[in-house]
Amino acid sequence: MIPRYTPPSFAALWSPERRFQVWLEVELAACEAMEAAGLVPSGTAGRIREKKLVLDVARIDEIERTTKHDVIAFLTHVEELAGADARWLHRGMTSSDVLDTSLAILLRDATDELVLRTDDLLEALAKRAREHAKTPMIGRSHGIHAEPVTFGLALAGHHAEMRRGRARLRAAREAVAVGKIAGAVGTYAHLSPEIEAKALGALGLRAETVSTQIVPRDRHAELFCAMALVAAGIERLATNVRHWQRSEVGEAEEAFTVGQKGSSAMPHKRNPILSENLCGLARIVRAAAIPALENVALWHERDISHSSVERMMAPDATSTLAFMLVRSKSLVEGLVVYPARLAENMARANELYFSEAVLLALVESGMARQEAYVLVQRNAMRAWQGDGRFSDNLGADADVSKRIPRAKLEELFDVEHALRHVPGIVERALA
Amino acid sequence: MIPRYTPPSFAALWSPERRFQVWLEVELAACEAMEAAGLVPSGTAGRIREKKLVLDVARIDEIERTTKHDVIAFLTHVEELAGADARWLHRGMTSSDVLDTSLAILLRDATDELVLRTDDLLEALAKRAREHAKTPMIGRSHGIHAEPVTFGLALAGHHAEMRRGRARLRAAREAVAVGKIAGAVGTYAHLSPEIEAKALGALGLRAETVSTQIVPRDRHAELFCAMALVAAGIERLATNVRHWQRSEVGEAEEAFTVGQKGSSAMPHKRNPILSENLCGLARIVRAAAIPALENVALWHERDISHSSVERMMAPDATSTLAFMLVRSKSLVEGLVVYPARLAENMARANELYFSEAVLLALVESGMARQEAYVLVQRNAMRAWQGDGRFSDNLGADADVSKRIPRAKLEELFDVEHALRHVPGIVERALA
Amino acid sequence: MIPRYTPPSFAALWSPERRFQVWLEVELAACEAMEAAGLVPSGTAGRIREKKLVLDVARIDEIERTTKHDVIAFLTHVEELAGADARWLHRGMTSSDVLDTSLAILLRDATDELVLRTDDLLEALAKRAREHAKTPMIGRSHGIHAEPVTFGLALAGHHAEMRRGRARLRAAREAVAVGKIAGAVGTYAHLSPEIEAKALGALGLRAETVSTQIVPRDRHAELFCAMALVAAGIERLATNVRHWQRSEVGEAEEAFTVGQKGSSAMPHKRNPILSENLCGLARIVRAAAIPALENVALWHERDISHSSVERMMAPDATSTLAFMLVRSKSLVEGLVVYPARLAENMARANELYFSEAVLLALVESGMARQEAYVLVQRNAMRAWQGDGRFSDNLGADADVSKRIPRAKLEELFDVEHALRHVPGIVERALA
Amino acid sequence: MIPRYTPPSFAALWSPERRFQVWLEVELAACEAMEAAGLVPSGTAGRIREKKLVLDVARIDEIERTTKHDVIAFLTHVEELAGADARWLHRGMTSSDVLDTSLAILLRDATDELVLRTDDLLEALAKRAREHAKTPMIGRSHGIHAEPVTFGLALAGHHAEMRRGRARLRAAREAVAVGKIAGAVGTYAHLSPEIEAKALGALGLRAETVSTQIVPRDRHAELFCAMALVAAGIERLATNVRHWQRSEVGEAEEAFTVGQKGSSAMPHKRNPILSENLCGLARIVRAAAIPALENVALWHERDISHSSVERMMAPDATSTLAFMLVRSKSLVEGLVVYPARLAENMARANELYFSEAVLLALVESGMARQEAYVLVQRNAMRAWQGDGRFSDNLGADADVSKRIPRAKLEELFDVEHALRHVPGIVERALA
Repeated sequence: MIPRYTPPSFAALWSPERRFQVWLEVELAACEAMEAAGLVPSGTAGRIREKKLVLDVARIDEIERTTKHDVIAFLTHVEELAGADARWLHRGMTSSDVLDTSLAILLRDATDELVLRTDDLLEALAKRAREHAKTPMIGRSHGIHAEPVTFGLALAGHHAEMRRGRARLRAAREAVAVGKIAGAVGTYAHLSPEIEAKALGALGLRAETVSTQIVPRDRHAELFCAMALVAAGIERLATNVRHWQRSEVGEAEEAFTVGQKGSSAMPHKRNPILSENLCGLARIVRAAAIPALENVALWHERDISHSSVERMMAPDATSTLAFMLVRSKSLVEGLVVYPARLAENMARANELYFSEAVLLALVESGMARQEAYVLVQRNAMRAWQGDGRFSDNLGADADVSKRIPRAKLEELFDVEHALRHVPGIVERALA
Repeated sequence: MIPRYTPPSFAALWSPERRFQVWLEVELAACEAMEAAGLVPSGTAGRIREKKLVLDVARIDEIERTTKHDVIAFLTHVEELAGADARWLHRGMTSSDVLDTSLAILLRDATDELVLRTDDLLEALAKRAREHAKTPMIGRSHGIHAEPVTFGLALAGHHAEMRRGRARLRAAREAVAVGKIAGAVGTYAHLSPEIEAKALGALGLRAETVSTQIVPRDRHAELFCAMALVAAGIERLATNVRHWQRSEVGEAEEAFTVGQKGSSAMPHKRNPILSENLCGLARIVRAAAIPALENVALWHERDISHSSVERMMAPDATSTLAFMLVRSKSLVEGLVVYPARLAENMARANELYFSEAVLLALVESGMARQEAYVLVQRNAMRAWQGDGRFSDNLGADADVSKRIPRAKLEELFDVEHALRHVPGIVERALA
Repeated sequence: MIPRYTPPSFAALWSPERRFQVWLEVELAACEAMEAAGLVPSGTAGRIREKKLVLDVARIDEIERTTKHDVIAFLTHVEELAGADARWLHRGMTSSDVLDTSLAILLRDATDELVLRTDDLLEALAKRAREHAKTPMIGRSHGIHAEPVTFGLALAGHHAEMRRGRARLRAAREAVAVGKIAGAVGTYAHLSPEIEAKALGALGLRAETVSTQIVPRDRHAELFCAMALVAAGIERLATNVRHWQRSEVGEAEEAFTVGQKGSSAMPHKRNPILSENLCGLARIVRAAAIPALENVALWHERDISHSSVERMMAPDATSTLAFMLVRSKSLVEGLVVYPARLAENMARANELYFSEAVLLALVESGMARQEAYVLVQRNAMRAWQGDGRFSDNLGADADVSKRIPRAKLEELFDVEHALRHVPGIVERALA
Repeated sequence: MIPRYTPPSFAALWSPERRFQVWLEVELAACEAMEAAGLVPSGTAGRIREKKLVLDVARIDEIERTTKHDVIAFLTHVEELAGADARWLHRGMTSSDVLDTSLAILLRDATDELVLRTDDLLEALAKRAREHAKTPMIGRSHGIHAEPVTFGLALAGHHAEMRRGRARLRAAREAVAVGKIAGAVGTYAHLSPEIEAKALGALGLRAETVSTQIVPRDRHAELFCAMALVAAGIERLATNVRHWQRSEVGEAEEAFTVGQKGSSAMPHKRNPILSENLCGLARIVRAAAIPALENVALWHERDISHSSVERMMAPDATSTLAFMLVRSKSLVEGLVVYPARLAENMARANELYFSEAVLLALVESGMARQEAYVLVQRNAMRAWQGDGRFSDNLGADADVSKRIPRAKLEELFDVEHALRHVPGIVERALA
């Protein structure tokens, strides 16, 4: 989580202030549930709430240097501030009841923020996809000109993928919105499932089915995988922008702001640096999936090896992905599309993308498919080497013209017809 | 996919014979949909079906050595076998229509098989969890004795995690059960969404929302992540078995078959080799998630870099996970549990797991939590160093006994009470 | 290790026949060392060698199904074939003495083969780099035209990287060429360091400094990392070929063989499928680094979790990398370079790559750098938008011409001068 | 890089202040080399040095917000501070000349610091290994008692592995201590190899063989792999400490400081939290290897996707590993070893670790190995199940006693003899 790639709301979300505040909320929710169960004197939590404690991070850190235990340091500090009532806090609980329930709240909130940013990106993609639903572009497989698509279709494809990503984030959000107030090894030795349900309900969480000392880490790993999948979708989008912008293609370009400089040496350069940056950040979010998965196999009722991974990677991965989503949205919104260049590149394909239509017409005329293939390829290869237009070559090839009359041949060379289904696909995606 | 770790049904699923058979099914389903749409002469597919073609893998390979294109080699061979009707196959389609739709079928079927094996494992876990729902075991956090749990509770936790894994497999199954018959760059230039829907419906698949030349690879990556999560759950189970079996613990042991030898040098050894093997295999399945995620960001309307990854890792990861599930099931079924050793280990904890109960009783008596903590710790530390039983030490400590009378103290030291909620948790998990 | 991506010599290297043959070699070498030390009757190994045992893999597998222990099965079979002398084999040894020493031999031999193939690739790169040392190509950063390089310079860069890769393979080869004949837990309880040194020396290996039951796995992980680095270097080369070949660039192209077909639908296509394939395979080799690193932290004197990872990944990663090296070599050898297209693309850069030369000339004339930057950028931007040649624009800009006379300006626009150091760099790399 | 896991010297090393300071050093070294070559007026760099510029990070950030280019922002600020002389800085250079050369300096310095910390850890390991060279410990394979080793032998094994890690760091240090002052695309268009060599020499670096716009990223990836290998070695050490400390084993324990608290609920707990933490941190360092390897295949003469990865992961991975090394050293130094418990655990093995000695004696007496194996196993199994001492069982077994007389049997049961080679191994490792 470095400032450059951290949205402010994520800096706040993962700050120590917010963390300790959430810990206190969890302790108070648990306390109130225990009051209802008669384990703690009624009104305890309410009195502490009224004091509107302002927790002092530096003081907690100071205590931790002695105790080497963060939750004990926190509780000691709360006792300093809240006095005698505080002794009822944490009754029958273990540190992980606080830590894991708090982590659930923070990850749930972070994921909610990610979903909101995904919505923004989806909106931007939908707008630009509709705008260019009928803007022809040469489709490319293997980087080689294939058949025509539209610029909007490409964006609609990214929209559909991002929507799947959103669904994965939503599912993972449910997976991690699970807390645990079940005591040292998850047996409710001094608590009860009812207390847990009440406390977690108040915090907007569900209870773990079977907790150990902690909430099992497959839940968190699922979230990291979901984030890696969203990041991979952004990587695909950004990779395409980089291709569209490269000098020889020039079909679309990142917005270039006034005063921006592309190179310290070459003043003319306008580089797709936002997209390149997104590709790099995708690597970071992807890499976090591995330690998250390695965190699952903890020993017995838990070991604490997962903790350091989460301290670093939960803030890093969520913030970085949030930054990616915001940057992707402005990338899409600002993308400058060059229809003239799109047309020019398509023209360079020299009609070869109609080869399949010709192939099919030959087959329909009764020719075997592989024979027709050879016939089309020989005319296509000449055109591809710059020797004549493809349609002219075909018209001049007796083996072809005896099967496809010139008028019929011209009908086959119709881009609009080839793209007739595209607006429907785009609308199907955005619906 | 090496024989040692490949269940027979997965060897069959990923054999070239099966692959080409599925290709043919896809071509025929598409042909029938085109017949219905009037693009292909009625009865074409039916006539080919009647010939009950037996595809010759070696012959297809031979043709591919010339064409360097597998689908063209396949079609050429089908034309050799089926004659003139075959020229209508693949009409308006691109190779990926066949390849990706077939991959969807194979991955769907593989995932269904994985789900079935997960069910078997769940059944075994449920049975053993119920069997040992009340068998006390010392719970351990950080590898250190904590408070009591039961052996069944630990298994119920694995059951709950595996059930979440099953749900992820089911979700991923839906994600990959998506085909594409939309032509070269996904525009239906010579086809239609209706033809695609009809053909895929017959194959038990849904249509991609927006395909490029291919089905987007985030779908496949989701499956690989889901498999990695299931593997991680098995890794946790296997890690626990290894801990339970280690010489000093000895609480449970893998079944040891007649004739099995533990070591070429040390005849007495009975090693948890199944569990160790499962831990290694989990690394393999986990590692596959990274290339699967790297496969997402293909160029433009597709590049073919994903193909080699899938050729190796789709069979490898699915087969390995299937093997893991089968092995885990028999591991759980055969697990020999030693209640006497469980009791012995718990006794070694010298009642220290009741420290929290004492702490709470002191707090309830009006003592501040941190003060009580110090009091308990000083008696616990002595007991931990072998200096007296914990309950005796407490009884002899005036600072304690003036607040907790001996009778009350004894009440606190009740394992059955501490575990009163456990059977309920187990049933909640298995319900 | 699937046939498609496995060179024949690697199929042989990793066959069960070869594995058991190497096991036998290790046992015999150890036996001879023990004969020299007087622990085993002299001549034992020699008599077994004379029998030229032909090991029966199926028989060993059959025995293993009962013993569930591969080395014991192997030894039992050797005893079947060699009779009474065989009882002296494996004396005081543990399975891992055989397994790890054999693995060292196989990995050493595999790495030697990799180095040889790297040499072939280096030779191909050197040849083509020299051939095109002076063929101008527009250099590109961020995919955007920058300043001129030469095609040979790009290849020389790949050569230099591959040479570093070779050095890493050589270092890793030394790291893994280490065996261990030290008994059950590495203490030589029934052996001696002298016996180990003699046996390993005969096998061309060194002895582990401190073995546990096994050779520590950091050695193997180093090799996997080295292979991932070589694969990444190939990925960079292949990525560049894919860029060079894409329709709009067209500067170089993979050799296209007679009969090869690019697409089942579009007969004109010539796709960079070798390079795309190499990119996918690089993902596979890279992914193997993670489980190899996870294999390091085995428990106590060893656990066997590493074994399944190595069974699958040692053959897979070495074979796949060997295949990549061979394919890369033929890719480079067959690469068709199009100097006319190179020149055409450079012309499209509209001289903008001389912007820095102009910038420096302005600075030398006394102008502040940032001021000069603005001046150059305004003329460059016009040229970049197709409004005039860059040199003409500059000549017509009074702020420029008053500082750089026309004659001097023309001197700045000299590609040959800009590339004057390139042949020297190329030779420096290939030396 | 979070404060909790960042040693102060690494916080300083990766601070923006230090980064800009190094940039300035690189610019000045290059300027001086250009002065010597006559490209820049003599004395320029010297005059700037005399001004002892204090760079203002906030001001540079402010300028970057407009230029969106960090090096241009830096140069603009230097020009603000140093005046007219500054226009000679960066002459003929590109941003990456500064950035990559500076990164080389920072990574070199970071690696030097890592090597120093590795030396400290090696020293601690050596000291404790010698201290316990003869302290017997039951060796364990698969977590199961095997044959005796010594505690010092285990530490010596970690020492040997860490020494290999040190060598890898040293090699990677050489790999990354390579800069580049070769201009926009590495052609020295406005510079020369001589200038580069002189400037880099002054900075303690070597020149890249063939640079593109940047130093190729395989060099950096090698360093990340080397760090992952060292981290994996620490993970193995920490895993062993966790095993030694677990309640049932209790052979060694992390130092527990006064005031430290093990659990908020269970006052008696002393958990191996340092070691668990080290295991988690190893996951973080390992995970960084993947994006570092993905960074290698940049497009053409470079793209900037690597930059964000390095911004986050270079500080993170180096600092985290430094923290791990420091923590490992104090872990080893403070490790409390319990010889009594070591002896007690060995006693629980009930002499079974002598089974191999018996096996060998039977073979020497003329029995076939597999027959002897069965004989030993039947006596071992009884002993293992608590039915008699192993030596007594053997003595009472007629099939044994007729081949091994009682006196000879007793000779075989000698721990000191079994460990006779161990001190030699330890010294061999530490030499």
